[in-house]
Amino acid sequence: MSDEFCYIGGNVAENAGGGRAVKYGVTGRYVLGVEVVLPDGERIQVGGKRYKDVTGYDLLSLLVGSEGTLGIFTRIYLRLLPRPTERATVLSFFPSVDAAVDAIPRIVRDSGIVPTSVEFVDQLPLHKACEMLGETLPYQNAHAMLLLEADGRDAVVVQREAESMEEICRTSGASYVHRANDEADAERLWTIRKQVPWALRKYAQQQSLEDIALPPAALPDYIAELQMLASKYDVTIPSFGHAADGNLHATPLKRAAQTAEEWQETSGALLAEMYEHAARLGGTISGEHGIGHKRREYLPHVMSNRQIDLFRRIKDSFDPEHIMNPGKIVE
Amino acid sequence: MSDEFCYIGGNVAENAGGGRAVKYGVTGRYVLGVEVVLPDGERIQVGGKRYKDVTGYDLLSLLVGSEGTLGIFTRIYLRLLPRPTERATVLSFFPSVDAAVDAIPRIVRDSGIVPTSVEFVDQLPLHKACEMLGETLPYQNAHAMLLLEADGRDAVVVQREAESMEEICRTSGASYVHRANDEADAERLWTIRKQVPWALRKYAQQQSLEDIALPPAALPDYIAELQMLASKYDVTIPSFGHAADGNLHATPLKRAAQTAEEWQETSGALLAEMYEHAARLGGTISGEHGIGHKRREYLPHVMSNRQIDLFRRIKDSFDPEHIMNPGKIVE
Repeated sequence: MSDEFCYIGGNVAENAGGGRAVKYGVTGRYVLGVEVVLPDGERIQVGGKRYKDVTGYDLLSLLVGSEGTLGIFTRIYLRLLPRPTERATVLSFFPSVDAAVDAIPRIVRDSGIVPTSVEFVDQLPLHKACEMLGETLPYQNAHAMLLLEADGRDAVVVQREAESMEEICRTSGASYVHRANDEADAERLWTIRKQVPWALRKYAQQQSLEDIALPPAALPDYIAELQMLASKYDVTIPSFGHAADGNLHATPLKRAAQTAEEWQETSGALLAEMYEHAARLGGTISGEHGIGHKRREYLPHVMSNRQIDLFRRIKDSFDPEHIMNPGKIVE
Repeated sequence: MSDEFCYIGGNVAENAGGGRAVKYGVTGRYVLGVEVVLPDGERIQVGGKRYKDVTGYDLLSLLVGSEGTLGIFTRIYLRLLPRPTERATVLSFFPSVDAAVDAIPRIVRDSGIVPTSVEFVDQLPLHKACEMLGETLPYQNAHAMLLLEADGRDAVVVQREAESMEEICRTSGASYVHRANDEADAERLWTIRKQVPWALRKYAQQQSLEDIALPPAALPDYIAELQMLASKYDVTIPSFGHAADGNLHATPLKRAAQTAEEWQETSGALLAEMYEHAARLGGTISGEHGIGHKRREYLPHVMSNRQIDLFRRIKDSFDPEHIMNPGKIVE
């Protein structure tokens, strides 16, 4: 969603991910260098226009994703790729979440294709987004959506990859499979996906947009666990996200009948369980949104005290007075 | 050359590069996590099987390429890609270094192709390698070689890319262009490239194998500068390397007539000039070999004291007693 309003500084400071990371990786892969102002005002340049660099410790990767806690970027060097000239977009609706999730490894692992995008949306956010958009697609019986994309520079190859992905969706039980006719149609399909967080926000103003990152193979287990937690805490936990990367924006929603205090208590306990379960499956609490203040106290759920102590030492190495974005990542 | 004897631990500790980084990036791109024993014996796991992770500072990238100075890896989690099923290998000989170097941006930037490999070898190492191998290819009039490769999963596309690369070589003035007939032929061509460092080592036992990394666009300027430095210091500086990445293994050779003391003096001054010129062009002193002990004293040529001080602080954060691979990267 943030592609509509974010800036490159924030992108780099968060090491942003998004819907094309399956094929292209996250922001950091393209950052060749930064000029950064350190907390005492000294300006240094780390990296530059060179593509390869093992000149000592990788300060560049440390700065990328540091959430403004180590310094402020005043210049960013990016590597650009030739723009793909062809893309093919496939929308699939599934009669169950399981059917959609089962299709994912068949697309990503078994087919030999490296898709550009494998976006997953479950029932509630799909329906709310389509309703908000006045969508006429036959989403009414869908329990889950996959939005798939292939791109490249060869139309025949890209269309063939799209065909394979369609075929996999069909044999995985998709009830509706549609390949975009043209760019305008592709944009229409992406608009549904991009509407999801806004539709959820409209539906339930109090919510906790999460950013669980899992080993992709653990996704089915985690989705089953979410269903159990939703029952246990009597809340709705819709999910959407970058499924092939195992990055799931599970989003517990406050019930209308709950008071703000009840919600705070419920969501605190629920998030702790969600995070612990992610950790048990080899996952973590943030794939692309970062830690900030919100998730700082939850770090011990997914890492040892020693790691958190190393974070503090790194923070102290750059910013001994803790004046840069204070309270974020480390206390 | 080290692909014949290296281990994965060293690969990760050096963040190794090599001949396929143009398309696939360096080792670090595939490292999802490590289990690492810290200097006091505590074992922590950083990252894991998840693909995306922005849970605090990027300790993983800090450990990758840290040359054994922060801890010892006891487990490494790697991301694997579907193996490409097709490859096409193209060898080109050029009547001048300039002609070969001019072809590189035309292949990498203008064609829209993302080649797997763009390896460059200049005259002396090419001839010495071919002689050692008893090669019958018409290398005798060649002043430079480009070894190009494309790979993928679609034979038609891969062969078409190879054809484009051949065409670019021809229109850039190549005197000989040969596409490998089969896998055995491709291996034969790669053997020439892999023989280069061994042939140079046999030719001049005292030498300084360098690892300059430049913005790729700066390669022609740097090669011209190397020729001037070779004249100035009256030494031979053959070059080879991963040209599309701007990673050049320029290798000053001791003249037979020089004493060890003369060579030490000459090479010290020459390397300082080579490094300074790399820095002026936006490059650095190591693209894939690392700093170790050899290049530590040269760090001030390519970075500020503040950056070196940050290295020291990071070292101290992990290894306050400096017991891990002491003297490497930081003093």
